[in-house]
Amino acid sequence: MNTSRTDNAAAAPAAAFWTDLQQALGPQGFTRGADAIPEKYWTDWSGTPPVPPLALLRPRSTDEVSALLRICHAHRVPVVPQGGLTGLAGAAVPVAQGVAVAMDRMQQIEDVNARTGLMTVQAGVSLQTVQEAAVAAGWVFGVDLGARGSCQIGGNVSTNAGGNGVLQNGMMREQVLGLEVVLADGTVLPMLRPMLKNNTGYDLKQFFIGAEGTLGIITRVLLRLRPAPQAKATCMVALPGFDEALAVLARMQARFGNSVAAFELMWSDFVQTSIQWQKLQPAFAEHHPLQALIDVDGKDEAALRAAVEEALGEAMEAGEVVDAVIAQSSEQAKSLWKLREAPAEMTAHMHPPVNFDVSLPQVDIGRFAAACRAAFDTRWPGHHSLFFGHVGDGNLHVTTDSKTINGEDEALEAVLYGLVQQFQGSVSAEHGIGLHKMPYLAFSRTPQELAAMRAIKLALDPLGLMNPGKVFAAD
Amino acid sequence: MNTSRTDNAAAAPAAAFWTDLQQALGPQGFTRGADAIPEKYWTDWSGTPPVPPLALLRPRSTDEVSALLRICHAHRVPVVPQGGLTGLAGAAVPVAQGVAVAMDRMQQIEDVNARTGLMTVQAGVSLQTVQEAAVAAGWVFGVDLGARGSCQIGGNVSTNAGGNGVLQNGMMREQVLGLEVVLADGTVLPMLRPMLKNNTGYDLKQFFIGAEGTLGIITRVLLRLRPAPQAKATCMVALPGFDEALAVLARMQARFGNSVAAFELMWSDFVQTSIQWQKLQPAFAEHHPLQALIDVDGKDEAALRAAVEEALGEAMEAGEVVDAVIAQSSEQAKSLWKLREAPAEMTAHMHPPVNFDVSLPQVDIGRFAAACRAAFDTRWPGHHSLFFGHVGDGNLHVTTDSKTINGEDEALEAVLYGLVQQFQGSVSAEHGIGLHKMPYLAFSRTPQELAAMRAIKLALDPLGLMNPGKVFAAD
Repeated sequence: MNTSRTDNAAAAPAAAFWTDLQQALGPQGFTRGADAIPEKYWTDWSGTPPVPPLALLRPRSTDEVSALLRICHAHRVPVVPQGGLTGLAGAAVPVAQGVAVAMDRMQQIEDVNARTGLMTVQAGVSLQTVQEAAVAAGWVFGVDLGARGSCQIGGNVSTNAGGNGVLQNGMMREQVLGLEVVLADGTVLPMLRPMLKNNTGYDLKQFFIGAEGTLGIITRVLLRLRPAPQAKATCMVALPGFDEALAVLARMQARFGNSVAAFELMWSDFVQTSIQWQKLQPAFAEHHPLQALIDVDGKDEAALRAAVEEALGEAMEAGEVVDAVIAQSSEQAKSLWKLREAPAEMTAHMHPPVNFDVSLPQVDIGRFAAACRAAFDTRWPGHHSLFFGHVGDGNLHVTTDSKTINGEDEALEAVLYGLVQQFQGSVSAEHGIGLHKMPYLAFSRTPQELAAMRAIKLALDPLGLMNPGKVFAAD
Repeated sequence: MNTSRTDNAAAAPAAAFWTDLQQALGPQGFTRGADAIPEKYWTDWSGTPPVPPLALLRPRSTDEVSALLRICHAHRVPVVPQGGLTGLAGAAVPVAQGVAVAMDRMQQIEDVNARTGLMTVQAGVSLQTVQEAAVAAGWVFGVDLGARGSCQIGGNVSTNAGGNGVLQNGMMREQVLGLEVVLADGTVLPMLRPMLKNNTGYDLKQFFIGAEGTLGIITRVLLRLRPAPQAKATCMVALPGFDEALAVLARMQARFGNSVAAFELMWSDFVQTSIQWQKLQPAFAEHHPLQALIDVDGKDEAALRAAVEEALGEAMEAGEVVDAVIAQSSEQAKSLWKLREAPAEMTAHMHPPVNFDVSLPQVDIGRFAAACRAAFDTRWPGHHSLFFGHVGDGNLHVTTDSKTINGEDEALEAVLYGLVQQFQGSVSAEHGIGLHKMPYLAFSRTPQELAAMRAIKLALDPLGLMNPGKVFAAD
C-alpha cells in the first residue's frame, strides 16, 4: 500500500516474461516501470495510496487477454484487472509485484439487436456509451450510476454494480445474459449464447459477476436491454419521518407496480449540504426531516402526472407526505434530480470523504440511521455526515468528512460496521469489498461461507494470481 | 439404471453407518431396504426406470440434514436429494449404492412479511403452498408451472425452474433472495440475510441455484414476492406465421412494457391435439398455423381490456393477427388457458411421450420448429409431434409420441439436439440436465466450460458424493 514497496518487490520475473509480453501485446499494449506508467493507473476513486504496477498491459482483444494471462501464469506473476478505476473499495488498485491489465482499448460495441433488445460489447466500453447505444436502438439500459461517463461495463459486472435503477431492473447481475471470461491460466470461457433460459449445468457466468476480478478477466458482455418507457413522472416529496417514507413507497408500488423506477431518500443534512455545495434552489420553503425523489414510468405524460398527483394527494391526506413537487417538464425533472448528485462534489468539499455503502432490512433503515447519528454525535460532536440512499432497495449511503472526526476514519468504520452487524445488515450493498472492506467481511458472512468462497477461488485460480489480496485473504 | 444393480452394490456401508443414521433421524426419518421404501421414491416423472436406494432418509430440520450428510460423508456413501419428484430430466432418481434424502417432512412456512414481500420457507414446501401464502399476504409468487401441486420449492431452486411467469418475473433464480444450504460434509451455509443488495464477496447462493443437487442440499429459501396485479386481461390470438407472432409480442411489449405477463405460443398440431384430448371448444372456427395466449397486467379491468382490444385491432390492421378472443371474465380466461394445459395429459395419451425443452435465439424459433418437423417427417412419416412453448423467453417445447417413431427415442434426440447445436441453442432451457441430457450437454457447452464446472464441483464436494452421475460425469 506504499509506493516504496515496489523497489524491493519479491522475486523479479525472468527476462522471457518481458519479451513474451511485449511480443503478445505490441508496443501500444505494453508499458514497463513506474516512470513510464501514467499515474492514473496507480489507484482508483477509493482514495487508496497509489501503487505503480510492474507493468501496464492494455490488450485489444480476447486473444491478447488470453495470451497475457498465459504468460503471467507461466511466470507466476499476479494480475490486477482495471476497468474505469471509479471503484470506491480499492479493488482495482495495482499490486507492486504484479501487472495491471487495463481494458481501455477494448471499447467496441460489437452488436445491438433492436428487435430482440440484446447488445454485445467488449468489457472496456463505458456505461454511458452502452446507455446511449441502447437508447439509439429504441431501448434503455437498466443500470445507471454517477460514474457513468468513466466506469466500464466490465467493471460494472465485476462489482455487480447497483445505482439508481435497481428498484425496477435489479442489479447488474440481472442485465447480464452472457459473459466471455478468461481464467487465470488463459482459458477462454465463451458463455455468450443469447438465451434468457439456459439450464445446462452450472450457470458459470454467475460466478464471475461480483467477483471483483479475483476469478478471471471479463472480456465481453451480452446485455439484456429494457423496453424504453414512453413517459416518465418525477416528483420530490417532503416526509415527516422514515416510517412515512416506507408507507409512501408501498403506496406508490401498490398503485404503479414495477413502474416505480426510483425511490431515493435523502436526510435533511444531505439536502442542506447539496443545496449549499451546488447553489441550488430548495424544492420546499421549510426544512423537513426527509425528502424522497420518486420516478414513475408510464405510457402518457399527462395521464401519468395526474395519477401521480392523485396518489400523492392521498398520501398527504394520510399524513405520509407533508409537501410535494411534481416536475412539469423534463428540465424540471433534471433539476429535481440535481439535488441527488451531491456525491459527485464530495471529494472537492470534504477532507477527504469517508464513504459507506451498506444494506439493511428495509424496515430498519430509519432506526439504523438514527443509531449511527447518535453514536457519531457522542464521540465526534460537530461531525459532518450525510445520510442518503437507494432506500427502495434497502441500501443506505453514509458519508462523513474525515476532518470533522479528527481523521479517525478507522474508529468511524468500527462504529458504523458494528451497528451494521447488530442490525444484521451487509457491509457492502453495491460497492464491493475490494481492499477497504476486507476487515469487515466477517461481519456479514460466516466462517463457513468464507471457506466456501476460498474453495471456489482455489478451484478457478489455484495459484492465487488473480487480483491477489482483494475481497478476502487467499488463505 | 437397472434395479437388479442394487443386489450387487459396491462396498456396503459399515454397521455404524446405519446406527448413526437411525439415531440422527429417528424411526420416522429412516427406512432401509427396497422392501420397505415406498416405490414413489424410486424414480421421478422423467420415466427413468426405478432404482430403490439403500435407504430413504426424511429429515425434519436443517440440523438433521447436516447430521445425515456428516454421517454419509464419514462413510463415503452417495446422497441423492429429492424434492417433489416431478423433474423431467431424472436428476432425483436414486442411485443403488446411495441414500435418497426426501425433503417432504420439511414443509414449514416460517415467515411471511406482508409489508416487505419476503417469505422464508423450508425447502419441502410445495410451489402451490408458496403461491397461496403469497396471495394471502397480498402479493404473488413470480414462478408458476404445471406441477405446482407436487413440486417443492427446494427442487424448483435446484433446477432453476421456469414456467409461465418468466417473461415478467424471470426464472426461479430471480425470486431467490437467500438460501440455506448444507454441503456434502455437513457444513451449513446460512445465506439468508433479507437484503436485495449484498455485495459481500462471491454471491454464494447463485452456485446452488440450478446445480440439481450436485453441490449440496437446499434446506431453507428466502423468497422475494411480487406486487399483486390489480387487473389482468387474457386473450387468444390466431397468427399467420412465426414472424407475425414476434411482431405481436414486440407490439404488446412496446405498449404494455413489463406488464406483458405471458406469451405462450402453440403450433396447430398442439392446438388440435389439446382440443381433442381435453374435449374443448376451439377458440376459433378456422384452423390457424399458430395461436398465442397472452396475459397482460394492469390497474383497471375494463380499461385494460379496452387497451388490449385496441392493440390487437392495430395488430390485425397490420396483418399480424388474423383473429382474436379477449376473455370477458376470469372463468373465460381460465378456459382459454385450459388449451395450454395439454402437457398434463401427455402421459395418459402418448406411448410414452418423448419431451424436449430447448432454448433458441428468439428470432430463430420458427425456422427451428420447421426444420425439426421436416427432419421428423422425412425419417418418421406419420409421427405425432407437438410444438409449443414460452416463446417470449426463447423457450420451445417439443413432445413426440414414441410409438409413432417406432420407439426410436435416441435417434429422435440425436436429430433434434443436432439441430439445437446447429442453431446455437441450449439443450435445456428450464428442465435441467439430470441423467437424460448428459450426453448432449457438450452441444451447448465447450470443454473449457465443462472443465470449470467440474473444478467447482470438486471444490465444494471433493469426494463426489452429492447426486453422483447427474449433470456431468464427475471426471
